[in-house]
Amino acid sequence: MENKIVGHSTTRWDAMAKVTGKAKFTGDYFFKNLLHGKYLRSTIAHGYVKEYDLSEAEKVEGVIKILLPEDVPQNFYSTAGHPWSLNPDKRDIQDRSVLTRNVRQYGEEIGAVIATTELAAITALEKIKVIYDEYPVYLTPKESMADGARRIHAERENIIANTCVSNGDIEKGLKEADYVIEESFSTPVQQHAHMENQIAIAYLDEDQRWTCISSTQIPHICRRVIGQALGVRWSTIRVKKPFIGGGFGNKQDITIEPLAVAMSMACGGRPVQINITREESLAYTRTRHAIDYTFKVGVKKDGTITAIDCEAISNQGAYASHGHSVGGKGGGFINALYKTENIRYAAKTVYTNIGVAGAMRGYGIPQVMYALEAVMEDVARKIGMDSIEFRIKNKVPEGTYNELTRINIFHNKLDLCLKKGKEQFKWDQKLALSKQHKSGPKRRGVGVASFSYGSGTYPFGLEVAGARIILIQDGSFKLLVGATEIGQGSDTVFSQMVAETIGVPAKHIITEALTDTDIAPFDTGSYASRQSYITGFAVKEAAEEMRMKILTLASRVHDLEISTIDIVDSNIVFKHNQLLVTTLADLAMISFYDQSFGKALVAESAVNIHQNSYAYGATFAEVEVDIETGEIDVLSVLNVHDSGEIINPQTAEGQVHGGMVMGLALGLSEGLRYSKEGKPLNNNLLDYKMPTTMDMPDLEVAFVIDKDPIGPYGNKSLGENPLCSPAGAIRNAVLDATGVAINHIPLATQTVYEQMKQAKLRD
Amino acid sequence: MENKIVGHSTTRWDAMAKVTGKAKFTGDYFFKNLLHGKYLRSTIAHGYVKEYDLSEAEKVEGVIKILLPEDVPQNFYSTAGHPWSLNPDKRDIQDRSVLTRNVRQYGEEIGAVIATTELAAITALEKIKVIYDEYPVYLTPKESMADGARRIHAERENIIANTCVSNGDIEKGLKEADYVIEESFSTPVQQHAHMENQIAIAYLDEDQRWTCISSTQIPHICRRVIGQALGVRWSTIRVKKPFIGGGFGNKQDITIEPLAVAMSMACGGRPVQINITREESLAYTRTRHAIDYTFKVGVKKDGTITAIDCEAISNQGAYASHGHSVGGKGGGFINALYKTENIRYAAKTVYTNIGVAGAMRGYGIPQVMYALEAVMEDVARKIGMDSIEFRIKNKVPEGTYNELTRINIFHNKLDLCLKKGKEQFKWDQKLALSKQHKSGPKRRGVGVASFSYGSGTYPFGLEVAGARIILIQDGSFKLLVGATEIGQGSDTVFSQMVAETIGVPAKHIITEALTDTDIAPFDTGSYASRQSYITGFAVKEAAEEMRMKILTLASRVHDLEISTIDIVDSNIVFKHNQLLVTTLADLAMISFYDQSFGKALVAESAVNIHQNSYAYGATFAEVEVDIETGEIDVLSVLNVHDSGEIINPQTAEGQVHGGMVMGLALGLSEGLRYSKEGKPLNNNLLDYKMPTTMDMPDLEVAFVIDKDPIGPYGNKSLGENPLCSPAGAIRNAVLDATGVAINHIPLATQTVYEQMKQAKLRD
Repeated sequence: MENKIVGHSTTRWDAMAKVTGKAKFTGDYFFKNLLHGKYLRSTIAHGYVKEYDLSEAEKVEGVIKILLPEDVPQNFYSTAGHPWSLNPDKRDIQDRSVLTRNVRQYGEEIGAVIATTELAAITALEKIKVIYDEYPVYLTPKESMADGARRIHAERENIIANTCVSNGDIEKGLKEADYVIEESFSTPVQQHAHMENQIAIAYLDEDQRWTCISSTQIPHICRRVIGQALGVRWSTIRVKKPFIGGGFGNKQDITIEPLAVAMSMACGGRPVQINITREESLAYTRTRHAIDYTFKVGVKKDGTITAIDCEAISNQGAYASHGHSVGGKGGGFINALYKTENIRYAAKTVYTNIGVAGAMRGYGIPQVMYALEAVMEDVARKIGMDSIEFRIKNKVPEGTYNELTRINIFHNKLDLCLKKGKEQFKWDQKLALSKQHKSGPKRRGVGVASFSYGSGTYPFGLEVAGARIILIQDGSFKLLVGATEIGQGSDTVFSQMVAETIGVPAKHIITEALTDTDIAPFDTGSYASRQSYITGFAVKEAAEEMRMKILTLASRVHDLEISTIDIVDSNIVFKHNQLLVTTLADLAMISFYDQSFGKALVAESAVNIHQNSYAYGATFAEVEVDIETGEIDVLSVLNVHDSGEIINPQTAEGQVHGGMVMGLALGLSEGLRYSKEGKPLNNNLLDYKMPTTMDMPDLEVAFVIDKDPIGPYGNKSLGENPLCSPAGAIRNAVLDATGVAINHIPLATQTVYEQMKQAKLRD
Repeated sequence: MENKIVGHSTTRWDAMAKVTGKAKFTGDYFFKNLLHGKYLRSTIAHGYVKEYDLSEAEKVEGVIKILLPEDVPQNFYSTAGHPWSLNPDKRDIQDRSVLTRNVRQYGEEIGAVIATTELAAITALEKIKVIYDEYPVYLTPKESMADGARRIHAERENIIANTCVSNGDIEKGLKEADYVIEESFSTPVQQHAHMENQIAIAYLDEDQRWTCISSTQIPHICRRVIGQALGVRWSTIRVKKPFIGGGFGNKQDITIEPLAVAMSMACGGRPVQINITREESLAYTRTRHAIDYTFKVGVKKDGTITAIDCEAISNQGAYASHGHSVGGKGGGFINALYKTENIRYAAKTVYTNIGVAGAMRGYGIPQVMYALEAVMEDVARKIGMDSIEFRIKNKVPEGTYNELTRINIFHNKLDLCLKKGKEQFKWDQKLALSKQHKSGPKRRGVGVASFSYGSGTYPFGLEVAGARIILIQDGSFKLLVGATEIGQGSDTVFSQMVAETIGVPAKHIITEALTDTDIAPFDTGSYASRQSYITGFAVKEAAEEMRMKILTLASRVHDLEISTIDIVDSNIVFKHNQLLVTTLADLAMISFYDQSFGKALVAESAVNIHQNSYAYGATFAEVEVDIETGEIDVLSVLNVHDSGEIINPQTAEGQVHGGMVMGLALGLSEGLRYSKEGKPLNNNLLDYKMPTTMDMPDLEVAFVIDKDPIGPYGNKSLGENPLCSPAGAIRNAVLDATGVAINHIPLATQTVYEQMKQAKLRD
């Protein structure tokens, strides 16, 4: 049957709230007697705090308390936003306490000031004197893995994980190849730079429990981590997430919340706010892992890939956070993108003294896809095969069982994406045109890169979700989910799903701005592009239950067989001729007020999903490289996605736009830089080269819409996908333009300038 | 099996919130740009507003808008807090609009001012000039029922209802009697005088719907009535009830909320607060109905009652509100207290131009029980029978079908209450002692009065409720109900019920301070002593469902037959030997995080209750009457209650204390007075004679604890019951002391003084 609502663009439910300024963010919550908390941060990157001198700071008017590590609970916990694992071996590394004397990065959280004003807190911070023992600073895995390197965490080695997954026989595969291409790549420390910095307010609530209002992607996980960090029963913690100004994975880590609650605890339950600065957020929260890759790809002359061997070394920074989950994840997705009988993926994740790497949109896949698509481009060029043709030839056939991820790939429309993109991008014309610009100071080229991406974390992670739907007297419905709207538009698509399944207009579904762990169905939150897929199953199950309850009531009230009636456009109708039985609004009134039939209708689901659908797509880019200055001008760019059914084309397009910008920025300009002492050098929005609208070309988007057989509405992931392929496409386009393969992103002006020089394209 | 938690006193969950001042009431919500709304009230009691002159008022700085009746929706609605009826004939009379030019009482809501400060609003109010057409003022039903009296509501007669219910043959019964006692009684206009006045804040929320934070007993009904009053879809309204400083039935009417929302609508959605004054709350919200009764009771010499005939005329005031539901209700409860084959109860409810009578704790029963117990005392005296013996003799036997209420009386321990009270009160000693004080200026006497009361409104009203229980990771539970905690302690007893049924400590049940119509299970609210009974069924059903879900999970995880295991003290144990299978906390972790079994456990119930249990009790009072001054000193007073199982003895005792004070005040001192022009004379806490602690004797309480066979935990109503019998007991004790039967309460000093004079006990 044709969808009426799913697959069509409806206005975001929060559009008015956002354009009118009505949307209430964490910083919009006002409290009497609000206190302000600020971190005392180390000014060295590796060492130990021997002594604090607080005497001058304590004299500052307005200072309520200065907390040292010994003043807060010292439980080790992990900040990573994953479901808790019942298996101790599978838990994220618990290497963090709320405050510490062990300095492992510049800006280490070695203390905190609570004051009546932010100014008083800052003034006091400046007056605190700290004496350190200093240790050598390791900026790269190479340094911290070196013989004799000091352990950054006394309890464990600097290499926090070292894994290898494989299928087939890699040596045999390499031997069978006509050519073996071997290349190395590196990626930068990208930062999320969400609009709203981390902010949290904690207080003792009316019922003597600790409430934390926080800008988090993972309210339920936040509750758990605060409980673990502070050593209190988890039920004594309540987390509320209001509107949120972006997260992109940075708010999939629990950063400031445990300290916020600890501060309130230290002040008898008074509300305390931590509202970190942009400079703190950029340097001292989380980043995308910088990963070094070495690829060896074996290929036959006809384009058959005989082996893919990849080694990855991931720079974790000072704390484990999401740790090896990110760097260790690449293998299965290589295997999901290119068919090969022989594959090996070896990965290390290593502590260093730079900022902590965590989850960032794409979760390691933009890095590995960039490197993979670069080496594959070089492989195609080596055998003289067209870039697009090569990728189509090596597409993983539908029905393939992925040995590394243990997932059946039932649905893969990468070939259609590449074909559609080729046509829509006018690839052939642009390729031809670029050939006319292969000399002179400005040279043109085109590049393509593809990717694969999962929908949620199964089978590696637990995937549970829930939804609750309440029928209202006028035939509207309230929808509550624990999944987290963080600006991506999830609540809008959930409301479409409910409307589609029940048979009412989308505007009759009322969603909820505030996610409250005491009330929302349990859901682990917003990450891994899981929501429309995983929570979609929960929403569908609840909506189907509600639909059945409505039809059951109608059948009883009107004495009809349930199989003969249906809900269409908010009416109960006979299935065979669509004639009206009763309106949903009238039936709803009976469910509330009839002395015999009256029982409010509610449906609630909890699902545990053991499936995953892989999504695909590709980026096509056309660049002009100024070989004199190193500047790259992206003339045009197109993302084509196979994400199954597209629930809401308009919001999906917006999602892709945002991802493309992040992906282009990863390839072209972004990267946190550190001094050799480990001090962040560009943790501000002037020096951290995040592209502005003016820096971006028009962003073209296309979808290959075809229902996935597994996804609840035929949908697959889309949230992170758009940034998996732009960097590779840019690198390949620059190669096409200049003949120079630059394997270390970002392709910042200076890098390109130097590479052009090295390639003797300029003086 | 012995209860572990139900039947034992646990600390109220909100005790800390209240004693520490943390409890957040409506007035504690702060908003930027909050506007203040004030009513423009008429200065006559009956008439029509011909003209408003706003010219001076509009000049007041800070005035945003002045609303006249024509500026707000003019939909007729009822303010009564009843479930909506699908049957138009059973609906409360819809005689009210948000503002009106038709003045029907002094203080009529003829307009409103919205200003940036309260002072500006008040200043503007004083500058508005109003020109009226004036009509004759009717203070009593006699006046408004008189021939030629003007209709107070053009659409209907002043007698809004005139009903008669009966069983047997009243004339035959009166003929069979040895004596027929006929007497008339009257009761005053009592006011609730809850600590927190009516207050509401309305604003356009983030999702473009109207939120109203209100101190209401009936959030879900409030949503509906606002929707009806303003003519908008009900789903566009959201009502939130925070902590509330009492209601006693006054907040079972929707008074200020529709105007609050209309004001915000008039100001583009800005938050507007209406916070009425004590003077407004006392005079212009709702009151207890003043009811006149005429009783004819036929009795045989042996004490057999052959007939009870009662006529009641109820003064409704200016609007119908709960109307005839109150005055019309008495018959069945007379019949539930005294067995008689012949009964007739005729009742009229009549509009007048005094303040609107609505629901007040007891809902008409304190009035009828006062009159009934007065006449029955006189009947007993007439035949020379002991007051207590007479009441025991005429107790309604268990198993009686009440023809008037269509309820089976399965459980009635009135006789045990009277016996227990007689002993505990030392009735015989006090009676003997009083005989020594029957002369001189101060005379002593003892009196007893009993009552019957229902549990909820069935079969007259719809009784639906719901509850939702969520298992938390540490083995605690969140309980959400739509039933309304208004200080009576309902959330505490609900948490005990959940704990008892599941098998965990009460402190592991977390309730919710805020009742939010978008989220709370549907429940019609707090009234009719329905909550622990009606919502108790819902809570029990949800708890049993949760218990079964936990046991089912345990049986699957541990591969055991579900019938062999149990939950005891937060452990899953073998039934036969209580040995540990697993802790609930460990099992809860599996329900959240196990890859196979993980599915969050939630249970939600919706019930529609078609039963009712009658509760009983009696008051014993000892008074000293100063026949010189008319002053009554209550020397001792005891309430004994048969409310079935007492869920929480300590909070139950508190509930009884409060009710006794209200009941004594009804008998002794309270009453709103009006000038002949209809102007309230004592609508302030100085002149309205509410007793203080210093005015009250020690309040003794006893319970006859015996499980009701129907109530969810063997419990019956208790909330309103305690104030049904004190007034009668006082009247009867004064009669015993002085020989003077005073049939018009309150027995205020002046009344008693005059009656003593008339009886020639003094000059």
